[in-house]
Amino acid sequence: MLSNQLLNKVTWKIPNALALVGSASGETWNGMTTSWITQLSMEPVLIGIGVDNSAVTHRLISEGGSFTVNLWDPADKRVFVKFSKPAVRRGTTLNDRQVRIGKTGAPIFEDAIAYMDCQVRYAWDMGTHTLFIGEVVDAGIRDDTIRAAAMSDTRMKYGGVKRGGH
Amino acid sequence: MLSNQLLNKVTWKIPNALALVGSASGETWNGMTTSWITQLSMEPVLIGIGVDNSAVTHRLISEGGSFTVNLWDPADKRVFVKFSKPAVRRGTTLNDRQVRIGKTGAPIFEDAIAYMDCQVRYAWDMGTHTLFIGEVVDAGIRDDTIRAAAMSDTRMKYGGVKRGGH
Repeated sequence: MLSNQLLNKVTWKIPNALALVGSASGETWNGMTTSWITQLSMEPVLIGIGVDNSAVTHRLISEGGSFTVNLWDPADKRVFVKFSKPAVRRGTTLNDRQVRIGKTGAPIFEDAIAYMDCQVRYAWDMGTHTLFIGEVVDAGIRDDTIRAAAMSDTRMKYGGVKRGGH
Repeated sequence: MLSNQLLNKVTWKIPNALALVGSASGETWNGMTTSWITQLSMEPVLIGIGVDNSAVTHRLISEGGSFTVNLWDPADKRVFVKFSKPAVRRGTTLNDRQVRIGKTGAPIFEDAIAYMDCQVRYAWDMGTHTLFIGEVVDAGIRDDTIRAAAMSDTRMKYGGVKRGGH
């Protein structure tokens, strides 16, 4: 018997990344905490991210055609809860974090330890989430000594079955 | 300038899982170390895995229409190198690890701390790898006290740009 409880427990065990995804449509920018991230091809280098269909980021990536993946210092965890809601833009900041616009038009966080700037090649609606697959057209490493944050660095969980108001 | 070296370095920083993927076509069974794994939808619960187009596992999943994701104890790391090559089946073992056939027909490792048995719903060739997306139709947890292994538990790396003979 495959209960929702078991589905939650087992999927929460999958070791996930924890990063900020940047997106933009015109003057509307956002950053969103994201854990469903994986590379999907080596030639070209493609990165896939799963984004909730109801998220602001879903609209911005759909309109803007690009996204950034910003890997983060695990010591700077406060961002992950903060960026679980739509971010507040002031000038060139999102939630008071400095960003700059990358080659694809999506914002890159200056505080990221490393980033990938991705042009969307495919977008597939999987049900509750859309898989955006982007080619890495630009990338950078700010600090090569720090490992990137993972979900397991926090007490957060993401995944499992759909819940009311998720 | 986006060099192959930078693409390798930045993609290797993405925190990945490290698990064994089970697959079967008729009497041919395999288990393969896999790190490109993420959930992709909550309703239905879909899991995506990226599998090298030249891998035995690619053929078996394509033919068998299913796969299992076997999460592993990080203290039992030897399997990951061992299962980087096609596994040797003897009876109901793969590389001397006991397996049983799950609901979908794919093998489940008895040593896994948890498993997801997935029926393939979509398969998309991304270039070097195919993204197999499966619905979790059965799952189990053998030991709920152990966290699942991640790539960072080893010195292994996977991803980046394609290399000769990869």
